[in-house]
Amino acid sequence: MALLDDNRLFPTDPAVRGLARELYETVKDLPIISPHGHTDPRWFAENAPFPDPAQLFVTPDHYVFRMLHSQGIPLEDLGVPRADNGATEQDSRKIWRLFASNYHLFRGTPSRIWVDHALQEVFGVTDRLSAASADAIYDQIDAQLKTDDFRPRALFERFNIEAISTTESAIDDLKWHQMIRESGWAGKVVTAYRPDAVVDPEFAGFAQNVAQMGEMTGEDTTTWAGYLAAHRKRRAYFQSYGATSSDHGHPTARTEDLTQSEAAALFSKALQGTCSAEEADCFRGHMLTEMARMSLDDGLVLQIHPGAMRNHSAPVETRFGRDKGYDIPTRTDYVTALHPLLNAVGTRADLTIVLFTLDETSYARELAPLAGVYPALRLGPPWWFHDSYEGMMRFREMATETAGFYNTVGFNDDTRAFCSIPARHDVARRVDCAFLATLVATGRLDRDEAPEVAHDLTYRLAKEAYRL
Amino acid sequence: MALLDDNRLFPTDPAVRGLARELYETVKDLPIISPHGHTDPRWFAENAPFPDPAQLFVTPDHYVFRMLHSQGIPLEDLGVPRADNGATEQDSRKIWRLFASNYHLFRGTPSRIWVDHALQEVFGVTDRLSAASADAIYDQIDAQLKTDDFRPRALFERFNIEAISTTESAIDDLKWHQMIRESGWAGKVVTAYRPDAVVDPEFAGFAQNVAQMGEMTGEDTTTWAGYLAAHRKRRAYFQSYGATSSDHGHPTARTEDLTQSEAAALFSKALQGTCSAEEADCFRGHMLTEMARMSLDDGLVLQIHPGAMRNHSAPVETRFGRDKGYDIPTRTDYVTALHPLLNAVGTRADLTIVLFTLDETSYARELAPLAGVYPALRLGPPWWFHDSYEGMMRFREMATETAGFYNTVGFNDDTRAFCSIPARHDVARRVDCAFLATLVATGRLDRDEAPEVAHDLTYRLAKEAYRL
Amino acid sequence: MALLDDNRLFPTDPAVRGLARELYETVKDLPIISPHGHTDPRWFAENAPFPDPAQLFVTPDHYVFRMLHSQGIPLEDLGVPRADNGATEQDSRKIWRLFASNYHLFRGTPSRIWVDHALQEVFGVTDRLSAASADAIYDQIDAQLKTDDFRPRALFERFNIEAISTTESAIDDLKWHQMIRESGWAGKVVTAYRPDAVVDPEFAGFAQNVAQMGEMTGEDTTTWAGYLAAHRKRRAYFQSYGATSSDHGHPTARTEDLTQSEAAALFSKALQGTCSAEEADCFRGHMLTEMARMSLDDGLVLQIHPGAMRNHSAPVETRFGRDKGYDIPTRTDYVTALHPLLNAVGTRADLTIVLFTLDETSYARELAPLAGVYPALRLGPPWWFHDSYEGMMRFREMATETAGFYNTVGFNDDTRAFCSIPARHDVARRVDCAFLATLVATGRLDRDEAPEVAHDLTYRLAKEAYRL
Repeated sequence: MALLDDNRLFPTDPAVRGLARELYETVKDLPIISPHGHTDPRWFAENAPFPDPAQLFVTPDHYVFRMLHSQGIPLEDLGVPRADNGATEQDSRKIWRLFASNYHLFRGTPSRIWVDHALQEVFGVTDRLSAASADAIYDQIDAQLKTDDFRPRALFERFNIEAISTTESAIDDLKWHQMIRESGWAGKVVTAYRPDAVVDPEFAGFAQNVAQMGEMTGEDTTTWAGYLAAHRKRRAYFQSYGATSSDHGHPTARTEDLTQSEAAALFSKALQGTCSAEEADCFRGHMLTEMARMSLDDGLVLQIHPGAMRNHSAPVETRFGRDKGYDIPTRTDYVTALHPLLNAVGTRADLTIVLFTLDETSYARELAPLAGVYPALRLGPPWWFHDSYEGMMRFREMATETAGFYNTVGFNDDTRAFCSIPARHDVARRVDCAFLATLVATGRLDRDEAPEVAHDLTYRLAKEAYRL
Repeated sequence: MALLDDNRLFPTDPAVRGLARELYETVKDLPIISPHGHTDPRWFAENAPFPDPAQLFVTPDHYVFRMLHSQGIPLEDLGVPRADNGATEQDSRKIWRLFASNYHLFRGTPSRIWVDHALQEVFGVTDRLSAASADAIYDQIDAQLKTDDFRPRALFERFNIEAISTTESAIDDLKWHQMIRESGWAGKVVTAYRPDAVVDPEFAGFAQNVAQMGEMTGEDTTTWAGYLAAHRKRRAYFQSYGATSSDHGHPTARTEDLTQSEAAALFSKALQGTCSAEEADCFRGHMLTEMARMSLDDGLVLQIHPGAMRNHSAPVETRFGRDKGYDIPTRTDYVTALHPLLNAVGTRADLTIVLFTLDETSYARELAPLAGVYPALRLGPPWWFHDSYEGMMRFREMATETAGFYNTVGFNDDTRAFCSIPARHDVARRVDCAFLATLVATGRLDRDEAPEVAHDLTYRLAKEAYRL
Repeated sequence: MALLDDNRLFPTDPAVRGLARELYETVKDLPIISPHGHTDPRWFAENAPFPDPAQLFVTPDHYVFRMLHSQGIPLEDLGVPRADNGATEQDSRKIWRLFASNYHLFRGTPSRIWVDHALQEVFGVTDRLSAASADAIYDQIDAQLKTDDFRPRALFERFNIEAISTTESAIDDLKWHQMIRESGWAGKVVTAYRPDAVVDPEFAGFAQNVAQMGEMTGEDTTTWAGYLAAHRKRRAYFQSYGATSSDHGHPTARTEDLTQSEAAALFSKALQGTCSAEEADCFRGHMLTEMARMSLDDGLVLQIHPGAMRNHSAPVETRFGRDKGYDIPTRTDYVTALHPLLNAVGTRADLTIVLFTLDETSYARELAPLAGVYPALRLGPPWWFHDSYEGMMRFREMATETAGFYNTVGFNDDTRAFCSIPARHDVARRVDCAFLATLVATGRLDRDEAPEVAHDLTYRLAKEAYRL
């Protein structure tokens, strides 16, 4: 039995489905451009085997463990590590069985498609995951993981990844990237500049992080000028490991454009740890504008990923730490929030700012109107909870009429779940072809134009926007 | 002529429609579980005939009279009672004619489907309601209402209602429920605990209500401890009449988790009538958390129905009183508002909190991400203005990918319009089957899994979530 | 080759498409009622030829030049006039070539449909616009523009416009309308009363504008009573040139209902230029209620168009002035904002207030519930960025179930792009027929009712709501 329907995600009308299928055939085998994600560069540096099915599919994937947890399964039973080093399940086969016997919870979710895709396409599984099939599938995957064909680099090549970006902290030493480079392996794995630890006064260890950035760059980061110079040097260092973008994950989309003396004064308070919450927020907002100005010089694409309230459950954060599926989207304003940044640099055609959102209400109301006029702005693809069939369809339906296709930047997978990468790109290709086929069938796009748009959305726009 | 299309609400593509129909056939005759609604227990206690067609379909149904009123028909002409006891139309036939001759206003609305369903399925009407058919249909319904087969209990049985919950104030004596029980009739009619009158300092007569609760329970409700004890006793009393849930209809979703001394101090001000608006809001918010804590002990499901601005028109409220169709949804935040409650009890798998919304923008952004991780949370079905084909479809499309099906609780009708109950459940069954058929046709659910999900959405999830 | 698909915008399912087509055939040739728009009355007064293709299609159309600009094309290169009288491209053929060679940017946008419709239906163009076809199409259009058949009045008649409303400032002398009337031409071109310049204390030259209104009316507009009297006289003057509506484009939907002495005091501050931003906003809000009261006397329909943050880019405003595509929608509240107005006049059935929005999240949550109960309220069609296939479909899907069809007012084109008028009305007719066909096919509307609704949405509702 096949886990996947060959015509999945295509329109149901036979004629439109045929059209979508034709378009999909022209793009399905294109190389993967993955300009934003969270795979671990260590995988490609060491090229060690992935340990076992549970540690590949369950324990590190917050989409998976949050759903199981939502139905009352303790995170401990899923092997999610405790922040306090308390006991958690260590038997991967037991974790896998728990996942398998609750696999019905994922009906109708993108995780189901991603997991089924990986099971079938990567591991050759033909039975649906369930309590009954759990052990056999575990053994089937586990055996393959022990072979060379399933090590990270082999999978990278098999996945047909032309380029992938990881994300590292501004004070990361990039040693895994260095190791990849020195290995002589041809896989293109680049980094991205993520400066949260040194631009957010509320980040744990902010002052120490800034001091470390000073040491790494030989700049005096106790001064505003030295701090900015240190950023420039770190950005250049990241660029030497292929970085073409920076990435910023603030709680809101707030930006500021302070005078240099105002900014210096805030920076000084931030170092001393005396910023109020409002001042910290203001400083973060101002740093987006500073980063954009640096981008005008060094060409890094500026990515803004706002709108998540992180670690919503205090008890869970205390017990398990950050990033345990308890990040919840909030209403996000862009029109007022981005005003200072856009007044400063928004009309520059030599700058690319990619906006993401977790608040779909902004697509038609704010993001498409902004990206549809400001030369510097582009819209990122549906992100996180919206990286899904419905999420992508709503994005195209709500953004295209005002922003067009060419103010968007193709797809990125944003994932740390390596085996889901081909699945996610396949979903995006199918949904885009379904959308284009529907446009053609309803006279909103000519048949002869559609293949070019499909190719652009799959490959060219991501490659060009991110300069990969 | 049939008023209803046999294939109504199914997808238009013939193959998908066939699939939806197949699924629907498996659930259409399942008993109705109605875990939240506003039918009058007196109907089932006294089992008296409903008076006439206008008083059954028009005068008590705010969906119906608000639409007629929106086109300029005075509420008086529809027999809506005046708060000042002023004159209103008393001739039911005239009211019915007004309804009938304006029936075109309901084109494209759920009311049209509900009324047509009741006319055809309950009363055997075959002509469309209009000025021309008004009198004949009036006579046809009126004659049947006078027969025993159309008394409340007979209809209850004919509607195949397995269990229905009414909603009573915390200080209701539940005499109609008592009378039902004593009658020996087998119909399962339970109550639900609605404490607005005794948890909302701004509710008319709050202090008096609290005093009454004290008398009813023998607790000293002038103290915070006695007040809480009185709640516990009333909840137990409601449970003795079958209650499995409490229900809370606050203007916002705000919750608080005060210290006991802070809460006691606020309570004291509330009794004295000296709470500011902000303090009253804070107290209401805190009481949600108290209710949740009581639920941990007694097992009542906690329902939160926030987000309506009640009685929007002051002149209409003055003339006609509350609940006259002038309640308007407002933007509703959940992420911040529920934070105190969820930090207190959100990870408890032995608690069920059912969230409702009138703000659809929260489905994908807030509610599905919250319910998709917190063990205590479940999502209620589309509510009130969204109890409709489009409303249900948007709910499934926006909530399923992140919350799945199993963090939802099936359908409830939330109605005081008795004859619309089978119609509303039928709409929900059709829309869910249409949605599932579309998932199957687009490879997002396997064909063999769909019947189980259809059954769950129709019957099992409501029964289990509400412990009915 | 045809630029337009005969079945564009209809559903893809063949049976439903057939039904949509049947409905469309009954309305496609109905006369155009255009009750709200921004065409220039001078066109019809002077009846001079339009200058050339670029000045007809590119330079004045903010939808077109904003998209080109968003991809880095300087507004100067598109001939958009500079506020500082700096140099801009003057060669219309070069502008046209730039448009043509970037025509792919409009794929999937309503502009593409409007332009293709005008090219094919008005100018007989058969090749798709592109770099290759640019010159030939330019010549083809340019030659026709020089003929009498393509002068404004001839096009007006050919477009089958039964009535069109322009929009003029309250202190406009309406000389072009006078000239139209005196010409004896039979085309019905009426004005609408747009008082921003004299009700918004922050409008450039407010005090001077109010003084001018005093001179025009012989009223003492230094007093509150004289100011109101002047409004009444100007409204009457506008009505003498056919006006049936006033129009109000405030940043928010805020209304106020101050006492007359409060209002007089604010007015006095406004004249002196001493209003705070909050006071200015309050005054604007109060003037909506005053205008509504005047409407009760003179019968003008009150249109509210809130929610745009104008001139978002300060550098662009400095260089090019207002209305350069940099107006961005913002989140808009109606429930609280309209409360004062609706408490004052909302239940009056002899008043028509038409609400528009740029915030689609308000359709189902606020606007449909409000219009579905207040006798004075009607919903305007999807506006501006939402004047599109997806925008219209979302409007019908989100508003119809609660407001029905009869609390909406048909379509208006809101355009200054004359040749797009037939295109826009054709899109609306197609989408409405597609929506109705889908309702019929899913059993939500009877087949025999659909033609009447189609006719109402196309023609009757606009004509009656706007009293044209």
